[in-house]
Amino acid sequence: MPHIALPPELPGMRSLLVQYPATGGPLMALAQTVLRGPSPLSIAERELIGAWVSVGNHCEYCSRTHGEAARVLLGDNGFWADEVFEGTIPPSASELLKGLLALAEQVRQGNSRGDEVLITRLKGLGADDQMIHDTVLIASSFCLFNRYVDGLATTRPATLDYPVIGRRLAAQGYSS
Amino acid sequence: MPHIALPPELPGMRSLLVQYPATGGPLMALAQTVLRGPSPLSIAERELIGAWVSVGNHCEYCSRTHGEAARVLLGDNGFWADEVFEGTIPPSASELLKGLLALAEQVRQGNSRGDEVLITRLKGLGADDQMIHDTVLIASSFCLFNRYVDGLATTRPATLDYPVIGRRLAAQGYSS
Repeated sequence: MPHIALPPELPGMRSLLVQYPATGGPLMALAQTVLRGPSPLSIAERELIGAWVSVGNHCEYCSRTHGEAARVLLGDNGFWADEVFEGTIPPSASELLKGLLALAEQVRQGNSRGDEVLITRLKGLGADDQMIHDTVLIASSFCLFNRYVDGLATTRPATLDYPVIGRRLAAQGYSS
Repeated sequence: MPHIALPPELPGMRSLLVQYPATGGPLMALAQTVLRGPSPLSIAERELIGAWVSVGNHCEYCSRTHGEAARVLLGDNGFWADEVFEGTIPPSASELLKGLLALAEQVRQGNSRGDEVLITRLKGLGADDQMIHDTVLIASSFCLFNRYVDGLATTRPATLDYPVIGRRLAAQGYSS
Protein backbone atom coordinates (compact mmCIF):
# COMPACT_ATOMS: atom_id res chain seq x y z
CA MET A 1 0.00 0.00 0.00
CA PRO A 2 1.34 3.46 -0.82
CA HIS A 3 2.46 5.67 2.10
CA ILE A 4 0.00 8.38 0.98
CA ALA A 5 -3.44 8.36 -0.70
CA LEU A 6 -3.07 7.89 -4.46
CA PRO A 7 -5.60 7.02 -7.21
CA PRO A 8 -5.94 3.22 -6.78
CA GLU A 9 -6.45 2.62 -10.49
CA LEU A 10 -3.08 4.18 -11.41
CA PRO A 11 0.34 2.55 -10.81
CA GLY A 12 3.81 3.87 -10.09
CA MET A 13 4.87 7.31 -11.31
CA ARG A 14 1.51 7.79 -13.09
CA SER A 15 -0.35 7.89 -9.75
CA LEU A 16 2.00 10.59 -8.42
CA LEU A 17 1.81 12.78 -11.53
CA VAL A 18 -2.00 12.75 -11.42
CA GLN A 19 -2.37 13.22 -7.65
CA TYR A 20 0.31 15.92 -7.40
CA PRO A 21 0.03 17.91 -10.66
CA ALA A 22 1.89 20.99 -9.37
CA THR A 23 5.12 19.00 -9.20
CA GLY A 24 4.04 16.57 -11.93
CA GLY A 25 4.35 19.29 -14.59
CA PRO A 26 8.04 20.09 -14.02
CA LEU A 27 8.86 16.38 -13.62
CA MET A 28 7.22 15.55 -16.98
CA ALA A 29 9.02 18.50 -18.60
CA LEU A 30 12.33 17.23 -17.24
CA ALA A 31 11.68 13.68 -18.53
CA GLN A 32 10.60 14.95 -21.94
CA THR A 33 13.66 17.22 -22.28
CA VAL A 34 16.19 14.68 -21.07
CA LEU A 35 14.74 11.65 -22.90
CA ARG A 36 13.26 13.23 -26.04
CA GLY A 37 14.99 16.60 -26.52
CA PRO A 38 17.96 17.15 -28.87
CA SER A 39 20.91 14.89 -27.96
CA PRO A 40 23.73 13.00 -29.67
CA LEU A 41 22.29 9.93 -27.90
CA SER A 42 19.43 8.17 -29.66
CA ILE A 43 16.07 7.97 -27.88
CA ALA A 44 16.59 4.20 -27.64
CA GLU A 45 19.99 4.65 -25.97
CA ARG A 46 18.52 7.14 -23.50
CA GLU A 47 15.66 4.84 -22.53
CA LEU A 48 18.19 2.01 -22.13
CA ILE A 49 20.36 4.13 -19.81
CA GLY A 50 17.23 5.00 -17.78
CA ALA A 51 16.24 1.34 -17.50
CA TRP A 52 19.82 0.38 -16.59
CA VAL A 53 19.95 2.89 -13.71
CA SER A 54 16.48 1.80 -12.54
CA VAL A 55 17.58 -1.84 -12.43
CA GLY A 56 20.57 -0.82 -10.31
CA ASN A 57 18.21 1.05 -7.98
CA HIS A 58 15.86 -1.98 -7.84
CA CYS A 59 12.94 0.15 -9.04
CA GLU A 60 10.64 -2.42 -10.63
CA TYR A 61 8.15 0.05 -12.10
CA CYS A 62 10.76 2.28 -13.77
CA SER A 63 13.04 -0.52 -14.94
CA ARG A 64 10.20 -2.45 -16.57
CA THR A 65 8.42 0.51 -18.19
CA HIS A 66 11.58 2.15 -19.55
CA GLY A 67 13.08 -1.26 -20.35
CA GLU A 68 10.06 -2.07 -22.52
CA ALA A 69 10.28 1.36 -24.18
CA ALA A 70 13.96 0.67 -24.93
CA ARG A 71 13.08 -2.79 -26.28
CA VAL A 72 10.66 -1.29 -28.83
CA LEU A 73 12.99 1.54 -29.81
CA LEU A 74 16.10 -0.64 -30.15
CA GLY A 75 14.51 -2.70 -32.92
CA ASP A 76 16.89 -5.54 -33.82
CA ASN A 77 18.84 -4.92 -30.62
CA GLY A 78 15.71 -5.17 -28.44
CA PHE A 79 17.21 -8.18 -26.64
CA TRP A 80 19.57 -5.72 -24.90
CA ALA A 81 16.61 -4.94 -22.65
CA ASP A 82 16.74 -8.53 -21.32
CA GLU A 83 20.47 -8.21 -20.68
CA VAL A 84 19.97 -4.90 -18.86
CA PHE A 85 17.16 -6.45 -16.74
CA GLU A 86 19.73 -9.04 -15.66
CA GLY A 87 22.13 -6.27 -14.59
CA THR A 88 24.50 -6.93 -17.49
CA ILE A 89 25.89 -4.33 -19.88
CA PRO A 90 24.88 -5.75 -23.32
CA PRO A 91 27.98 -7.62 -24.62
CA SER A 92 27.10 -6.82 -28.23
CA ALA A 93 26.74 -3.05 -27.68
CA SER A 94 29.42 -0.70 -29.02
CA GLU A 95 32.38 0.04 -26.75
CA LEU A 96 31.09 3.62 -26.55
CA LEU A 97 27.63 2.60 -25.30
CA LYS A 98 29.18 0.14 -22.84
CA GLY A 99 31.31 2.98 -21.48
CA LEU A 100 28.31 5.30 -21.18
CA LEU A 101 26.43 2.61 -19.21
CA ALA A 102 29.48 2.28 -16.93
CA LEU A 103 29.44 6.06 -16.43
CA ALA A 104 25.71 5.95 -15.61
CA GLU A 105 26.40 3.25 -13.02
CA GLN A 106 29.11 5.41 -11.41
CA VAL A 107 26.69 8.31 -11.19
CA ARG A 108 23.96 6.06 -9.77
CA GLN A 109 26.28 4.93 -6.99
CA GLY A 110 26.96 8.58 -6.11
CA ASN A 111 29.48 9.81 -3.56
CA SER A 112 31.96 10.36 -6.34
CA ARG A 113 33.37 13.11 -8.52
CA GLY A 114 33.72 10.52 -11.26
CA ASP A 115 36.52 8.48 -12.70
CA GLU A 116 38.93 10.48 -14.88
CA VAL A 117 40.14 7.28 -16.54
CA LEU A 118 36.63 6.39 -17.71
CA ILE A 119 35.98 9.93 -18.98
CA THR A 120 39.28 9.92 -20.93
CA ARG A 121 38.43 6.51 -22.39
CA LEU A 122 34.96 7.72 -23.40
CA LYS A 123 36.41 10.76 -25.18
CA GLY A 124 38.87 8.46 -27.00
CA LEU A 125 35.88 6.38 -28.17
CA GLY A 126 34.22 9.50 -29.64
CA ALA A 127 32.04 10.76 -26.78
CA ASP A 128 31.66 14.53 -26.94
CA ASP A 129 30.80 16.82 -24.03
CA GLN A 130 27.08 16.79 -24.78
CA MET A 131 27.02 12.98 -24.75
CA ILE A 132 28.82 12.80 -21.40
CA HIS A 133 26.58 15.55 -20.00
CA ASP A 134 23.40 13.86 -21.17
CA THR A 135 24.43 10.48 -19.77
CA VAL A 136 25.19 11.98 -16.36
CA LEU A 137 21.92 13.93 -16.32
CA ILE A 138 19.81 10.92 -17.40
CA ALA A 139 21.40 8.78 -14.69
CA SER A 140 20.88 11.55 -12.11
CA SER A 141 17.27 12.05 -13.18
CA PHE A 142 16.45 8.36 -12.79
CA CYS A 143 17.96 8.49 -9.29
CA LEU A 144 15.20 11.05 -8.63
CA PHE A 145 12.41 9.15 -10.45
CA ASN A 146 13.27 5.79 -8.82
CA ARG A 147 13.33 7.27 -5.32
CA TYR A 148 10.10 9.21 -5.82
CA VAL A 149 8.25 6.10 -7.07
CA ASP A 150 9.58 3.70 -4.42
CA GLY A 151 10.03 6.17 -1.54
CA LEU A 152 6.25 6.62 -1.50
CA ALA A 153 5.66 2.88 -2.09
CA THR A 154 3.48 3.37 -5.19
CA THR A 155 1.63 0.30 -6.47
CA ARG A 156 2.84 -2.19 -9.05
CA PRO A 157 -0.19 -4.42 -9.75
CA ALA A 158 0.69 -7.96 -10.83
CA THR A 159 -1.61 -7.45 -13.81
CA LEU A 160 0.33 -4.44 -15.13
CA ASP A 161 1.02 -4.81 -18.86
CA TYR A 162 4.52 -3.34 -19.06
CA PRO A 163 4.94 -3.91 -22.82
CA VAL A 164 1.82 -1.78 -23.46
CA ILE A 165 3.19 1.01 -21.23
CA GLY A 166 6.59 0.71 -22.91
CA ARG A 167 5.08 1.02 -26.38
CA ARG A 168 3.11 4.07 -25.29
CA LEU A 169 6.24 5.76 -23.85
CA ALA A 170 8.17 4.88 -27.02
CA ALA A 171 5.48 6.41 -29.24
CA GLN A 172 4.30 9.37 -27.19
CA GLY A 173 7.12 10.35 -24.85
CA TYR A 174 6.38 12.41 -21.77
CA SER A 175 4.31 15.33 -22.97
CA SER A 176 1.17 15.75 -20.92
CA MET B 1 38.79 20.25 -13.52
CA PRO B 2 35.29 19.51 -14.81
CA HIS B 3 34.83 16.49 -17.09
CA ILE B 4 33.34 18.75 -19.79
CA ALA B 5 33.94 22.37 -20.89
CA LEU B 6 32.05 24.78 -18.59
CA PRO B 7 32.27 28.57 -18.10
CA PRO B 8 35.37 28.89 -15.85
CA GLU B 9 33.98 31.89 -13.98
CA LEU B 10 30.91 29.97 -12.78
CA PRO B 11 30.91 27.26 -10.07
CA GLY B 12 28.83 24.14 -9.42
CA MET B 13 25.24 23.92 -10.64
CA ARG B 14 25.40 27.48 -11.99
CA SER B 15 27.97 26.51 -14.64
CA LEU B 16 25.75 23.64 -15.85
CA LEU B 17 22.57 25.72 -16.03
CA VAL B 18 24.31 28.36 -18.14
CA GLN B 19 26.21 25.97 -20.45
CA TYR B 20 23.24 23.63 -20.95
CA PRO B 21 20.16 25.88 -20.96
CA ALA B 22 17.86 23.36 -22.69
CA THR B 23 17.95 21.14 -19.61
CA GLY B 24 18.66 24.03 -17.23
CA GLY B 25 15.13 25.39 -17.72
CA PRO B 26 13.26 22.28 -16.53
CA LEU B 27 15.76 21.79 -13.68
CA MET B 28 15.24 25.37 -12.43
CA ALA B 29 11.45 24.93 -12.74
CA LEU B 30 11.67 21.76 -10.67
CA ALA B 31 13.76 23.45 -7.97
CA GLN B 32 11.46 26.46 -7.85
CA THR B 33 8.32 24.31 -7.59
CA VAL B 34 9.70 21.90 -5.00
CA LEU B 35 11.49 24.50 -2.85
CA ARG B 36 9.29 27.58 -3.29
CA GLY B 37 5.86 26.35 -4.45
CA PRO B 38 2.89 25.81 -2.10
CA SER B 39 3.72 23.29 0.65
CA PRO B 40 2.90 22.65 4.31
CA LEU B 41 6.69 22.75 4.83
CA SER B 42 8.23 26.18 5.30
CA ILE B 43 10.80 27.36 2.76
CA ALA B 44 13.40 27.20 5.55
CA GLU B 45 12.51 23.56 6.33
CA ARG B 46 12.72 22.66 2.65
CA GLU B 47 16.15 24.24 2.22
CA LEU B 48 17.29 22.44 5.39
CA ILE B 49 16.10 19.07 4.02
CA GLY B 50 17.95 19.82 0.75
CA ALA B 51 21.15 20.69 2.62
CA TRP B 52 20.78 17.58 4.82
CA VAL B 53 20.51 15.25 1.80
CA SER B 54 23.44 17.04 0.11
CA VAL B 55 25.61 16.53 3.20
CA GLY B 56 24.73 12.81 3.14
CA ASN B 57 25.71 12.69 -0.54
CA HIS B 58 28.97 14.57 0.20
CA CYS B 59 28.09 17.28 -2.32
CA GLU B 60 30.05 20.26 -1.06
CA TYR B 61 28.56 22.84 -3.45
CA CYS B 62 24.92 21.91 -2.79
CA SER B 63 25.28 21.37 0.94
CA ARG B 64 27.00 24.71 1.49
CA THR B 65 24.79 26.82 -0.78
CA HIS B 66 21.49 25.36 0.46
CA GLY B 67 22.82 25.17 4.01
CA GLU B 68 23.53 28.90 3.92
CA ALA B 69 20.08 29.57 2.43
CA ALA B 70 18.56 27.54 5.29
CA ARG B 71 20.67 29.44 7.84
CA VAL B 72 19.25 32.77 6.66
CA LEU B 73 15.68 31.53 6.42
CA LEU B 74 15.69 29.76 9.80
CA GLY B 75 16.35 33.02 11.66
CA ASP B 76 16.83 32.22 15.36
CA ASN B 77 17.30 28.55 14.50
CA GLY B 78 20.03 29.30 11.95
CA PHE B 79 22.52 27.27 14.02
CA TRP B 80 20.68 24.15 12.80
CA ALA B 81 22.65 24.62 9.56
CA ASP B 82 25.88 23.94 11.51
CA GLU B 83 24.37 20.81 13.03
CA VAL B 84 23.23 19.56 9.62
CA PHE B 85 26.72 20.26 8.16
CA GLU B 86 28.05 17.93 10.87
CA GLY B 87 25.61 15.20 9.77
CA THR B 88 23.45 15.59 12.88
CA ILE B 89 19.69 16.01 12.95
CA PRO B 90 19.25 19.25 15.00
CA PRO B 91 18.52 18.13 18.58
CA SER B 92 16.35 21.19 19.24
CA ALA B 93 14.13 20.68 16.17
CA SER B 94 10.54 19.48 16.63
CA GLU B 95 9.97 15.72 16.70
CA LEU B 96 8.10 16.15 13.40
CA LEU B 97 11.01 17.86 11.64
CA LYS B 98 13.43 15.28 13.05
CA GLY B 99 11.22 12.54 11.61
CA LEU B 100 11.05 14.25 8.20
CA LEU B 101 14.86 14.48 8.13
CA ALA B 102 15.02 10.75 8.97
CA LEU B 103 12.61 10.06 6.08
CA ALA B 104 14.77 12.17 3.73
CA GLU B 105 17.82 10.14 4.78
CA GLN B 106 15.98 6.88 4.01
CA VAL B 107 15.08 8.18 0.56
CA ARG B 108 18.65 9.35 -0.03
CA GLN B 109 19.98 5.87 0.74
CA GLY B 110 17.55 4.41 -1.84
CA ASN B 111 16.96 0.75 -2.51
CA SER B 112 13.96 0.84 -0.25
CA ARG B 113 10.19 1.07 -0.36
CA GLY B 114 10.39 2.98 2.90
CA ASP B 115 9.83 2.19 6.52
CA GLU B 116 6.15 1.79 7.48
CA VAL B 117 7.01 2.38 11.14
CA LEU B 118 8.53 5.79 10.39
CA ILE B 119 5.59 6.78 8.16
CA THR B 120 3.11 5.79 10.88
CA ARG B 121 5.10 7.74 13.47
CA LEU B 122 5.21 10.81 11.20
CA LYS B 123 1.43 10.70 10.72
CA GLY B 124 1.01 10.43 14.51
CA LEU B 125 3.14 13.57 14.86
CA GLY B 126 0.85 15.46 12.48
CA ALA B 127 2.45 14.93 9.08
CA ASP B 128 -0.16 14.94 6.32
CA ASP B 129 0.17 13.31 2.91
CA GLN B 130 1.41 16.50 1.24
CA MET B 131 4.17 16.89 3.83
CA ILE B 132 5.35 13.29 3.38
CA HIS B 133 5.13 13.65 -0.40
CA ASP B 134 7.08 16.90 -0.44
CA THR B 135 9.82 15.53 1.83
CA VAL B 136 10.28 12.47 -0.39
CA LEU B 137 10.33 14.59 -3.56
CA ILE B 138 12.81 17.13 -2.12
CA ALA B 139 15.14 14.32 -1.02
CA SER B 140 14.80 12.63 -4.43
CA SER B 141 15.43 15.91 -6.27
CA PHE B 142 18.63 16.58 -4.34
CA CYS B 143 19.80 13.06 -5.24
CA LEU B 144 19.55 14.33 -8.83
CA PHE B 145 21.13 17.76 -8.19
CA ASN B 146 24.04 16.34 -6.14
CA ARG B 147 24.88 13.72 -8.77
CA TYR B 148 24.62 16.19 -11.66
CA VAL B 149 26.96 18.68 -9.94
CA ASP B 150 29.53 16.12 -8.78
CA GLY B 151 29.15 13.57 -11.58
CA LEU B 152 30.51 16.20 -13.98
CA ALA B 153 33.11 17.39 -11.44
CA THR B 154 32.02 21.04 -11.53
CA THR B 155 34.31 23.54 -9.83
CA ARG B 156 34.15 24.72 -6.20
CA PRO B 157 36.68 27.58 -6.00
CA ALA B 158 38.22 28.03 -2.56
CA THR B 159 37.24 31.70 -2.79
CA LEU B 160 33.52 30.94 -3.20
CA ASP B 161 31.45 33.07 -0.84
CA TYR B 162 28.75 30.58 0.16
CA PRO B 163 26.93 32.96 2.53
CA VAL B 164 26.41 35.41 -0.36
CA ILE B 165 25.05 32.62 -2.59
CA GLY B 166 22.85 31.38 0.27
CA ARG B 167 21.39 34.85 0.85
CA ARG B 168 20.66 35.19 -2.86
CA LEU B 169 18.89 31.80 -2.99
CA ALA B 170 16.95 32.70 0.15
CA ALA B 171 15.80 36.01 -1.33
CA GLN B 172 15.32 35.16 -5.00
CA GLY B 173 14.67 31.42 -5.22
CA TYR B 174 15.22 29.61 -8.49
CA SER B 175 13.38 31.64 -11.10
CA SER B 176 15.59 32.37 -14.07
